[in-house]
Formats: sequence, structure tokens, C-alpha cells
Amino acid sequence: MDELPLRDELRGKSPYGAPQLDVPVRLNTNENPYPLPEPLVARIAEKVADAARALNRYPDRDALELRAGLAHYLTRTTGHPVDRAQVWAANGSNEVLQQLLQAFGGPGRTAIGFEPSYSMHALIARGTGTGWISGPRRADFTIDTEAAVRAIGEQRPDVVFVCSPNNPTGTAVDADTVLALYDAAQAAKPGGAMVVVDEAYGEFSHGPSLLPLIEGRPRLVVSRTMSKAFGAAGLRLGYLAAAPAVVDAVQLVRLPYHLSAVTQATALAALEFTDTLLGYVEQLKSERDRLVAELRAAGCEVTASDANFVQFGRFTDAHEFWQRLLDEGVLVRDNGVPGWLRVSTGTPAENDAFLDAVRKLKKETAA
Amino acid sequence: MDELPLRDELRGKSPYGAPQLDVPVRLNTNENPYPLPEPLVARIAEKVADAARALNRYPDRDALELRAGLAHYLTRTTGHPVDRAQVWAANGSNEVLQQLLQAFGGPGRTAIGFEPSYSMHALIARGTGTGWISGPRRADFTIDTEAAVRAIGEQRPDVVFVCSPNNPTGTAVDADTVLALYDAAQAAKPGGAMVVVDEAYGEFSHGPSLLPLIEGRPRLVVSRTMSKAFGAAGLRLGYLAAAPAVVDAVQLVRLPYHLSAVTQATALAALEFTDTLLGYVEQLKSERDRLVAELRAAGCEVTASDANFVQFGRFTDAHEFWQRLLDEGVLVRDNGVPGWLRVSTGTPAENDAFLDAVRKLKKETAA
Repeated sequence: MDELPLRDELRGKSPYGAPQLDVPVRLNTNENPYPLPEPLVARIAEKVADAARALNRYPDRDALELRAGLAHYLTRTTGHPVDRAQVWAANGSNEVLQQLLQAFGGPGRTAIGFEPSYSMHALIARGTGTGWISGPRRADFTIDTEAAVRAIGEQRPDVVFVCSPNNPTGTAVDADTVLALYDAAQAAKPGGAMVVVDEAYGEFSHGPSLLPLIEGRPRLVVSRTMSKAFGAAGLRLGYLAAAPAVVDAVQLVRLPYHLSAVTQATALAALEFTDTLLGYVEQLKSERDRLVAELRAAGCEVTASDANFVQFGRFTDAHEFWQRLLDEGVLVRDNGVPGWLRVSTGTPAENDAFLDAVRKLKKETAA
Repeated sequence: MDELPLRDELRGKSPYGAPQLDVPVRLNTNENPYPLPEPLVARIAEKVADAARALNRYPDRDALELRAGLAHYLTRTTGHPVDRAQVWAANGSNEVLQQLLQAFGGPGRTAIGFEPSYSMHALIARGTGTGWISGPRRADFTIDTEAAVRAIGEQRPDVVFVCSPNNPTGTAVDADTVLALYDAAQAAKPGGAMVVVDEAYGEFSHGPSLLPLIEGRPRLVVSRTMSKAFGAAGLRLGYLAAAPAVVDAVQLVRLPYHLSAVTQATALAALEFTDTLLGYVEQLKSERDRLVAELRAAGCEVTASDANFVQFGRFTDAHEFWQRLLDEGVLVRDNGVPGWLRVSTGTPAENDAFLDAVRKLKKETAA
């Protein structure tokens, strides 16, 4: 790559992504372990065939039907009325976030996140030329509102990321904290700043969605994804809810026809099966709570989790424990948080295999 | 939108996109008028159903099978051996170009195009913070190699776009010109500059692809799309061929898992039907040549076309002629090139309807 005129900040970097290893129990990328039900597979085939019959034409550039479906889903599940004009969809919530940073971040502007958090926030900032500010988090991984408000006041970011439930720690953020950060961000910046609440794991939370906060707050955005709750990581369908003007703004930077007709058709089919898929979510939440309890019983420290994964520790050498789990046939994620690892909630059998391996390794360590 | 902290350069702009009007004959977006054959629709449904059974998992992040299929297609149709490691795919060639500009353009860097050309080049430059330089073209819309080389020497761009066949004029660029621009770009910039040959309409050209030029030129990229020749504008599948290091470089800026499993499955199905779809391309080339001849016979000026569309004129007021065609039920494209309009090649019946309307309007003008 040395003979290419690559941008300086990319030199020596590696592409983002979890190692893809072929092991019996893969609990490293927070995927939903339940395959889509076969009637939904059939419905997807049917709707995609319909879309394929017009595939020579460009897709609906504004994804109107899909956005209406997502608005209906949000209204139904949060109790807060959301309209199609308040919803935007793209290829994964990563693309949603990229579009937000292209519109509201970019060269000469900055974004802040409270780390450890979803590492793509910083990477998408870099990819869009947005300066990145690493904000603080408490040792227990909750956001220290006072410290966060102070950081915003000092750094005056253009975009504030709040990941709730937070990846990789599982920590939910309460509405009061988000409101304090929103007010601080507006006070710090003449013209205001955007606050993006990343609710990729929102459906797995014990508490309610932060979505109703968008009401009356033109610079608050909630982003979501179908990757986790809808069991559709392979679909790449992310979306946001916000004031209609925010949707208008991202349309200035979105690539035209960014969302394919087959993606739109597949997502619409999945929305028809919302009840079934949210049933899986309930099972996963219960398994997640079991993972927390059993890990604690096995002598691990565990961060309270509102997501479909659990952060556990603490290890003198987390990467060494990661490797030992891998040797037992269980792949979890080392996100680089010193002392901690992250495990995705799998099927009951996968979770048992993981817990058995942890108990075995803990016993060996104690011996 | 006034209460949003939008980037200054986006204020007052409108989203890119052709007007979507419901008229009998739509020849405005260079779509392929032939729907996919029904056996391909069935094959897409089958392959997407397979993909949907694993949709809870992330897609192949590196799209290895699809890239191998595209490499095979390029090898077969250009006669130049292309390997999977030389191919990269994304959601439309727009996303391919965006990734190239994120890696090799961006803040503090510039890109040049020879205008009029595909207007998304300038828009994607803006979206990635890349400075845009409008390079010259002759009055007949060919590239004046001397003037272009001079512009590159003076402006020292980091990225050079060459659209061949050029949109919206239909003009092909010959290999000697591309080589001269490539050498000029390397000489002008210590460390070299990227040259991107946009062959979105490559399959419709009378002449051969410029793809073999990538051999021995590490900074030359050819981009392609399945939107036109494969009749799959709704699929959003663009790709590039270049040295493997270029593919490594765009992987540093691509969003992880950017290409959905349903997109990969659909594209693979379409590649199985290459022969059938290239048969449609032959029909369209012959219809395109007929459009050129008939438009000239009707008293229009026509730019020589190697694409699936034809630029015709000249009109004192092109937009007025556009409106009059629309009143006749025929939608063509006003790309803002003074005096000229662009018509996409449709089915023989659509082309006849367009030609009849032109003849009628020309007669009215002459009367």
C-alpha cells in the first residue's frame, strides 16, 4: 500500500472487524442466535421476487413504505407516536451515523463519546474527517453526568454520542442524563449541537426507550437497527427517528438510491413478523439475565446489562482468558477494555457451553 | 432546517436526484428497460431464501464469493485476467467512489473531473470534504488531452475522474488519453495521484474496456456497476477493479459489513444469467444506434454515444423542449448542459414514442 497516496491518518491502520473464527460456540458479535422463522424466510423470498421483477428500475429513493413501517413499529413499541417524516433508513446504523456526521460533523468539527463505547463512533468520525473527543465514564461504566456535562462545556462538540444500552459494557443511560447532556451541548455551542442516542440494543433493555425525548428537541436523534432485535444482522438495516428537519438534512448527504429494492423488500417482510421476533427478544432477555446471575455465581464481576450481551471480568490478563475460552471452543469478544470481556447471549445450549467453560477455567485458576 | 447545526456548504442545497414523474414513457435515468427474465427472478428468490436462513448472522464482510464472480465476469468480457483480490464491491458505484475519496481524497485534498460529466463525482467530493476542480472539455464533449494535462499540471489534484463512456454526453475516452492523464497526474504530485475511470456504461461501448490499463499502474482504478448492463439498478451493486493494494486501502474506510447478505445473494444470481443479460445489452446498443440515426434524420444534433443513452440538441431553450416532450408523455433528462437533453435507450416501442414526439415538436418549431 506504500505506493498509494493514502491519507496520512489511515497509514498503518487495519480494517475494523471482529476476528472471524470457525469455532463451535460463537458469542462474539452480538448476533441474535435465532434464525428467522421459516414462514418469514418464505415471505422474504416472495417479496424479493416481486422487487426483482422491477429490479431494472431504481429503488424508491426515499424508502417511503419502509419508513412508514418503521414509524409504525416505533409507535407501537415505545408508545410514542412517530411519523414517517421523522424516520430515515440506511444500510446499517453505521451508515445512518455516517450520514449524520457528514451533515453535522466533518472537517473542522468534533464529536464526543463516553468511552469505552461503540468503537465505530470514533472510526466513523475519522472516516468523515470529524475530530474525535474521548469523554469520561465512571469505573463502573455508568456516565458521570457532572463530568460529562463539564467535558461538553469545555470541548464544545458539534455532535454528542450516547450509546444506550452501551456497547460493550451493556450499561443503560437514563433520560435525566441524556437531557442534561442535551442541554449542556446546546449551551456550549451557539447554533446548537446534535445529540445522537444510539439504541442499537434498545429492545433488550429493562427500561423504556429514550425515543420520546425527541419530542420538542430538534437536535436529538435516536438511532436503531434491525440487526439485533429483528435477528437480521445480514440485512444491514439501520434507521433513525428525529425531527423531520433532521431527515431532510441527511438527505442532503445520502448517496442517491442508497437503499436497494431487495433490502427494502426484506425489511418490510421482517416487520410483518414483529410479534414473533420480539418473542425471541423476550427469550434472549431472560437468557441474558441468567448469564449475569450465573457468571456472578461463578465468581465473575459482571456489569449490569440492558443489552443482548454481558461484560464480565475482571481478569489480570483479559486476552489470556479470551484465548483460554477459545481453546474450549467458545469465542467471545475482547474489546480492549482492560480486565473485561464481552459475551453475546446465545441459545440456552450455547450459553450453557460458555458458562461451563468459564466455571472450568475459574476452577483451574483457583487451584 | 434553520435550527439545525448543518454544515455551511450544505445550507440551501437540495438532495440529488432526477424528478420522479409518473408518465407513460420514462427515459430519464438510464435504466435498462428490460425487466430481469423470470427464471432469474426465481433464482434470486431461491438464493435470497438461502441467505435469509442465516440472516441473523452478519454477512461475509469481504464478499469473497461475489468478488470472485465479478472478477470472473470481467476476465471473460474484457479478455484481461482479473483476480478476486483486485475487485471490491459496494452499494452502487456511488459508494465505491465515496470509499475511494475517503481513502485518497478528503479534507485538504482535491479531485478533478472534466465537465459536463457525472455530477455525482462533484457531489461525492463535497460529501467527503474533497475540494472539487472542474476541468475542461471540448465543445464536442471530447476531452482535449493537452488542455486536460495542463489542468492537471497546474491544479495537482489527488484524484482524477475520467468517465468513459461519459455521462451525460455518451462520449467514450480512448486509452491514449487516459494514459496521458495518468502520467500527468503522477508527474504533478509527489507520491502520485489516483485516476478513477468510471465505466458505469462500459458494456454499451463500441470499443473495448479500459480495464486492461490497470496492469502495471497501481494508481489506476476502473469502476463498474450492475445497474445498467445487468438491468439491476434496484440492486445497488457497484464494483471496482484495481491493484490489490487499492482494495486493501478502501477496506480501511468501508463501513464493516457494508454489503448485505441479500445484496450479495441477488448479485450472484444475476451473474449466473450473464449471457442472457448481455443479450439485452446487444439489443440496447442496436436501439441506441438507431436513436442516434433517427434523431439526426429528424434534424437534431447528436453527440456520438457509446452509452445506453443519447445526448441530443441543440435547443435555444433545452428546458422548454424538455417540458414539451413531457407534455407528449415522454420524460427525458435535462442535465443542465446548455442546449442539450439526454434520452435513455428504452424498448423499441418507447424509443418510437420518443422519436415520434421529437419529430412532431421539430415540425411544430419549423412551421
